[in-house]
Amino acid sequence: MYPFDHPAVDRLIRLALEEDVGRGDATTRATIPINQAARGKITAKAEVVLAGLPLIAMVLAQTDKTAEVRLLAQEGSRVSVGTVVAEVWGQAAGLLTAERTLLNFLQHLSGVATLTRKFVEAVAGTRCTIIDTRKTLPGLRLLDKYAVVQGGGRNHRLGLDDGVLIKDNHIAVCGGVGAAVRQARSQASTWLRIEVECTTMTEVEEALDAQADIILLDNMTTAQMTEAVQLIHGRALVEASGNMSLARVREVAETGVDFISVGVLTHSTPAADLSMSVTCEPEL
Amino acid sequence: MYPFDHPAVDRLIRLALEEDVGRGDATTRATIPINQAARGKITAKAEVVLAGLPLIAMVLAQTDKTAEVRLLAQEGSRVSVGTVVAEVWGQAAGLLTAERTLLNFLQHLSGVATLTRKFVEAVAGTRCTIIDTRKTLPGLRLLDKYAVVQGGGRNHRLGLDDGVLIKDNHIAVCGGVGAAVRQARSQASTWLRIEVECTTMTEVEEALDAQADIILLDNMTTAQMTEAVQLIHGRALVEASGNMSLARVREVAETGVDFISVGVLTHSTPAADLSMSVTCEPEL
Amino acid sequence: MYPFDHPAVDRLIRLALEEDVGRGDATTRATIPINQAARGKITAKAEVVLAGLPLIAMVLAQTDKTAEVRLLAQEGSRVSVGTVVAEVWGQAAGLLTAERTLLNFLQHLSGVATLTRKFVEAVAGTRCTIIDTRKTLPGLRLLDKYAVVQGGGRNHRLGLDDGVLIKDNHIAVCGGVGAAVRQARSQASTWLRIEVECTTMTEVEEALDAQADIILLDNMTTAQMTEAVQLIHGRALVEASGNMSLARVREVAETGVDFISVGVLTHSTPAADLSMSVTCEPEL
Amino acid sequence: MYPFDHPAVDRLIRLALEEDVGRGDATTRATIPINQAARGKITAKAEVVLAGLPLIAMVLAQTDKTAEVRLLAQEGSRVSVGTVVAEVWGQAAGLLTAERTLLNFLQHLSGVATLTRKFVEAVAGTRCTIIDTRKTLPGLRLLDKYAVVQGGGRNHRLGLDDGVLIKDNHIAVCGGVGAAVRQARSQASTWLRIEVECTTMTEVEEALDAQADIILLDNMTTAQMTEAVQLIHGRALVEASGNMSLARVREVAETGVDFISVGVLTHSTPAADLSMSVTCEPEL
Amino acid sequence: MYPFDHPAVDRLIRLALEEDVGRGDATTRATIPINQAARGKITAKAEVVLAGLPLIAMVLAQTDKTAEVRLLAQEGSRVSVGTVVAEVWGQAAGLLTAERTLLNFLQHLSGVATLTRKFVEAVAGTRCTIIDTRKTLPGLRLLDKYAVVQGGGRNHRLGLDDGVLIKDNHIAVCGGVGAAVRQARSQASTWLRIEVECTTMTEVEEALDAQADIILLDNMTTAQMTEAVQLIHGRALVEASGNMSLARVREVAETGVDFISVGVLTHSTPAADLSMSVTCEPEL
Amino acid sequence: MYPFDHPAVDRLIRLALEEDVGRGDATTRATIPINQAARGKITAKAEVVLAGLPLIAMVLAQTDKTAEVRLLAQEGSRVSVGTVVAEVWGQAAGLLTAERTLLNFLQHLSGVATLTRKFVEAVAGTRCTIIDTRKTLPGLRLLDKYAVVQGGGRNHRLGLDDGVLIKDNHIAVCGGVGAAVRQARSQASTWLRIEVECTTMTEVEEALDAQADIILLDNMTTAQMTEAVQLIHGRALVEASGNMSLARVREVAETGVDFISVGVLTHSTPAADLSMSVTCEPEL
Repeated sequence: MYPFDHPAVDRLIRLALEEDVGRGDATTRATIPINQAARGKITAKAEVVLAGLPLIAMVLAQTDKTAEVRLLAQEGSRVSVGTVVAEVWGQAAGLLTAERTLLNFLQHLSGVATLTRKFVEAVAGTRCTIIDTRKTLPGLRLLDKYAVVQGGGRNHRLGLDDGVLIKDNHIAVCGGVGAAVRQARSQASTWLRIEVECTTMTEVEEALDAQADIILLDNMTTAQMTEAVQLIHGRALVEASGNMSLARVREVAETGVDFISVGVLTHSTPAADLSMSVTCEPEL
Repeated sequence: MYPFDHPAVDRLIRLALEEDVGRGDATTRATIPINQAARGKITAKAEVVLAGLPLIAMVLAQTDKTAEVRLLAQEGSRVSVGTVVAEVWGQAAGLLTAERTLLNFLQHLSGVATLTRKFVEAVAGTRCTIIDTRKTLPGLRLLDKYAVVQGGGRNHRLGLDDGVLIKDNHIAVCGGVGAAVRQARSQASTWLRIEVECTTMTEVEEALDAQADIILLDNMTTAQMTEAVQLIHGRALVEASGNMSLARVREVAETGVDFISVGVLTHSTPAADLSMSVTCEPEL
Repeated sequence: MYPFDHPAVDRLIRLALEEDVGRGDATTRATIPINQAARGKITAKAEVVLAGLPLIAMVLAQTDKTAEVRLLAQEGSRVSVGTVVAEVWGQAAGLLTAERTLLNFLQHLSGVATLTRKFVEAVAGTRCTIIDTRKTLPGLRLLDKYAVVQGGGRNHRLGLDDGVLIKDNHIAVCGGVGAAVRQARSQASTWLRIEVECTTMTEVEEALDAQADIILLDNMTTAQMTEAVQLIHGRALVEASGNMSLARVREVAETGVDFISVGVLTHSTPAADLSMSVTCEPEL
Repeated sequence: MYPFDHPAVDRLIRLALEEDVGRGDATTRATIPINQAARGKITAKAEVVLAGLPLIAMVLAQTDKTAEVRLLAQEGSRVSVGTVVAEVWGQAAGLLTAERTLLNFLQHLSGVATLTRKFVEAVAGTRCTIIDTRKTLPGLRLLDKYAVVQGGGRNHRLGLDDGVLIKDNHIAVCGGVGAAVRQARSQASTWLRIEVECTTMTEVEEALDAQADIILLDNMTTAQMTEAVQLIHGRALVEASGNMSLARVREVAETGVDFISVGVLTHSTPAADLSMSVTCEPEL
Repeated sequence: MYPFDHPAVDRLIRLALEEDVGRGDATTRATIPINQAARGKITAKAEVVLAGLPLIAMVLAQTDKTAEVRLLAQEGSRVSVGTVVAEVWGQAAGLLTAERTLLNFLQHLSGVATLTRKFVEAVAGTRCTIIDTRKTLPGLRLLDKYAVVQGGGRNHRLGLDDGVLIKDNHIAVCGGVGAAVRQARSQASTWLRIEVECTTMTEVEEALDAQADIILLDNMTTAQMTEAVQLIHGRALVEASGNMSLARVREVAETGVDFISVGVLTHSTPAADLSMSVTCEPEL
Repeated sequence: MYPFDHPAVDRLIRLALEEDVGRGDATTRATIPINQAARGKITAKAEVVLAGLPLIAMVLAQTDKTAEVRLLAQEGSRVSVGTVVAEVWGQAAGLLTAERTLLNFLQHLSGVATLTRKFVEAVAGTRCTIIDTRKTLPGLRLLDKYAVVQGGGRNHRLGLDDGVLIKDNHIAVCGGVGAAVRQARSQASTWLRIEVECTTMTEVEEALDAQADIILLDNMTTAQMTEAVQLIHGRALVEASGNMSLARVREVAETGVDFISVGVLTHSTPAADLSMSVTCEPEL
């Protein structure tokens, strides 16, 4: 299931285990009998929105091919403190060696989903959609974007190649918003939409004249955004951007913008509190 | 310079660029002339402790072999709002394509250093050292641990193979703290120290009897930690652990523990606010 | 320069050399002195449109780090029989070992450009653009798409992720062209355009109602295409597709379609005839 | 089964899927339910000689681990228009995402086999064998050489390391055909045969004197080849080479040469026309 | 099971097969029918201590997924001439292609174990432990260290990162043994022990004063070692090192040192004599 | 220069450094100042034949890009005890981190060359050539075969794909030596020679009848080999094989065989004694 079947996710899991395990789990090898069976429970220690549950089996498969996982909660659901979200069975050694890596993934992705859900709820009832940015940590792009969707948000472009977003630096080179949009229209792939960053009403008008598909209102006041939305009047989609906080996001949504993009979802995510306890089983 | 010369860092840089650039930077290719020269400035938008400056040149080298970087601030130093921390020169296209990836690294690592510095200052004057945990995001282990050092902290073990840390699950299998430490002593590499997690004074005594090198006081109250430190009385090093916050950390440090390990440094790091502006230059 | 700076191109060059060289060039090692210098000339043996010249230096760099290349013709230009398109200098051994791999790249890519140029010239004077397909050989996607541009064509989407193209199978699942377009609009990224395959006028109308961005006329007769273009009347872009030959392509272009996609450009490309001669030089 | 079990084939399949799928199949994800089952039929749209059928399962396994394949025609057999050569079952999404990559392989390799069969039939009844060259596209060496065998041809050396073939440039350095063969005999591995390119009868005599194992007649007229074959008189194997066309190949074969090597088999292969249709199934 | 589940072992197996098989096993492909079944027996041709038996199945799995292995002897046990240590079943082609690679692993690792056993027996009855060094062949570190354990020895540090070992060059830079140990204590990870090389009694005293954990007596005479052990008197662990031979090792062990490290175990290992015979079976 | 420019050598160097360095050289980082310059001397501690000198620079380049190497002895030459074979300059840290890996390569390869030289000298004056086998350690195939050449030997086939060698198991399947050779002749590449293992004079005659290119006399007595050589009488090349020792090799050579293959050269190589001393330099 996307994106877990993407080769980059497999690579990242291996990388994460390699950097943690190194030449082997010294403690487990010294203290745990080779054939000791065990059961693990992964429990929410706070209210969290879950994302990344399929990674539990994927990480465990690297340290114990025979491990089994039973998910007890839904991906994308909000669970209360104390909920057991998954149970795992396998070799004690394999569970213990995988534990930290598995939780590092799960805590971060659920952290993204949990934070996204808060922003989504803050704009509930408006027609505005919370979207993410490219401000993701190295290697986590696909997983972070997936977690945003589990939290109820949607994705901005996934990378530099699946959308055109003309920013201040591009505009400066081309000599203005209108020229930049026209230049992009003639050079870029027909299969991509063209978005352009605007900071003034004049630029917005230029963008509309040049038939930009999407207009990004960058660091405008709420009043300016209201004015811009009225000016655009459905002729292009509208994205609001610039250090959006939970406190301000509803006010912005009510201006009528189509999207609010929020960098904090992925660049400053508090980990969701989840932990794993392991108990020995009589036999493997 | 370590850890930037480690092959895993090179791999992570390539991974980060590949996931962002995909089949190419559609916007830059459509709007920026191939030989346009440019200059970029990286500026702190808030007070931050810097970590990761060498990555600027490493990321840029992937998109423009001819790019040059001048660092204007010291790695590990605290800079005030508005400080230009680095200038870069090269092809406009290369700078623009690398910009986001470069900042994603720098903002996260400086975020780790900045947060660590706050914890370090909170325990200033005590003999206690702030250390990190293995709660790092996949792929970032070495860089995150490096950033903690730039922030003034020190590192707990780097992975599962360069130290023995016996936790509750290992203890349960071995039948007690003392048995677990003795088991580890006889099986593990002579070249590794043995640390054991204790939750009661009885366990602390067992650990001392078994000659553990380091005792981890897990989720104890401050009073319990004070008692444990007195009981241990220099016969082992002492680490305090368990959801340490900035508010509580000084009180814990004053109990006399040698180390306080803080997961939040790397699992819930707020990005440091740094940005890059690019201006065209007359010629390359 | 894109796409030659893409990591996949470097990987492909290494793969090509590894599969040809194996454990070493047995003939060259047995007959050519280690320090023998040489000069090579790459000559067109037929009229060809050139594509892939930058690969000459990239391949040679793998077998002789000191090799130098002077290009004597422009990428994308048409050259006549006998034209020397590049000269190279370096170790005789390095040139001879790289020769076949280098020519395999250059002959194929120039073959794509040469064939594309013929299609482009066949529609000259119409407003129709010749585009490629995803029918490229494994590993050559980016290079083949680049060669099409050198030949004067433009690119359809580069892969499955940078455009939505709804085909018969997707339509069947969704229950019709209109339902499929609406389904895609609500689920796919806002940053991608939506194209849909139509085989009847009824489907074209459905597609227009559902506000498809691009309509693909699949295997229609010229008369049907004319009718469809009139029906669409600028409300969507129009692509014609289906075993397009040089003989038929102008007639199709004159129906007023915006694009004709041609699979034969990349799936059945005759190699362009280019060869390399090597002569020894007095000293390295 | 060779060469499908070679690691390079696995790498090429992954490379092909990665370059096509990118960050995911946007259309399929937007329009096809996750658990929709489907059946696919791969049908010949023209008379073709089949090569590459085992790749169907190998490619599908990357997008749907549960997919099943039933081959309905023999590798290396010639099938008529309309023949269903394979049926596949699995998730609709997996089939649709793999379709193009799978067909790109199958159409190219069957194209090689189909073209080879024509050359083989053109020389039927003579004692001459059709062989390939090293003019294969990057990454496809092993598969293309395999497809030639399916078409009824045989392979020249697979790379630069499993045979010595002394060409004009090597000869020039060594100072003549005889010297070059003797040089190679003394330096190259005893386990490899030595072939040398000759353009005149004098060179052929030199080659025979130096006991070359195989003599390559390069770009000779048919009359010259007849003369050379008589001169050689079984003392070495004889290969004819140089822009061999279907029209000329029989005449050359009748001169008595042992091998005719044909570059066009792999460097200018027309794709064989095969397509896949997918229909939904009631349940997975 | 460690270290066979380490990714580096999988990589090494693939590397070994790739360098042996190249583009395919020419002999087997030419002489063995594709579906011929066979049975293989691996037999000790001399008295050997076994190490590496799990690699039999791992190597075979690469050339025949269906191959089965039955181990008839214990890893780490000593077997007499003529003992059949394992039987394998599978495709004749797969067995024959894997044979040499499989034996190259098994003969080397059993060679390490066999030689180690001799050293271990030579010091039997003393309290001294035989340990290895970092003098292992490229790529074989983990496997060689594992084979030493099977032979009855134990491991020195696995690499440069899981222990501090201060040698002459480090001492020279720091200005003496004591200064070097103190420098290391303040800079190195708390989780690593500190060992220092000493060549005189004065250096031993310095090391003790600086509280080194382990003292390495480098190239001392037996008399000097006896003196050093008495001087140290349990205040640090003691390792003896320097061209240790079977003839001398007992004498050194009797000085009371804790460890003797022996480079010859892994850098000059005679292969253990094991061979494989293959017989055809009636059906697969 | 071959084989050092082969990608497998670069991979092996990286693998060797990664497995030794792990997360970093803990000792060097703790004791050596970052910018300390140093000079190293590599000295022969015994009489050795040198092989692998180019690897010194290749390994050092990985730990210190600025390091310089001056070779003071010739690859393939025999040097006496105490000879300084190379000097290196660079950062002290880089030299110390690379030291062990560099020596592990050099000591093994020079060990192979030194042992080979002894065998070559033992047969001096006969027309017999000492060759190696495929009994090389995983990953070292190309380097070991190269070291044999430096020692004065020559190479048997490099792998399973560049020569046909029919052994007992292949013969059993085909039903005899003659049938096996004819089977191989009809199926294998024309570009490979065919060698067959014979254990009796009857088999030798069969091999000659079937026109084998090379006959391998397996584990025959010297008298039998003499008889076989006379029987063959130049009609095929002759290789003697089977646990060849320095003591016996001359006697075998004098039977008139063309080649003696010696497994011990690479599977039981004593390391050549070479060491490196490092001294600090005033400035980098």
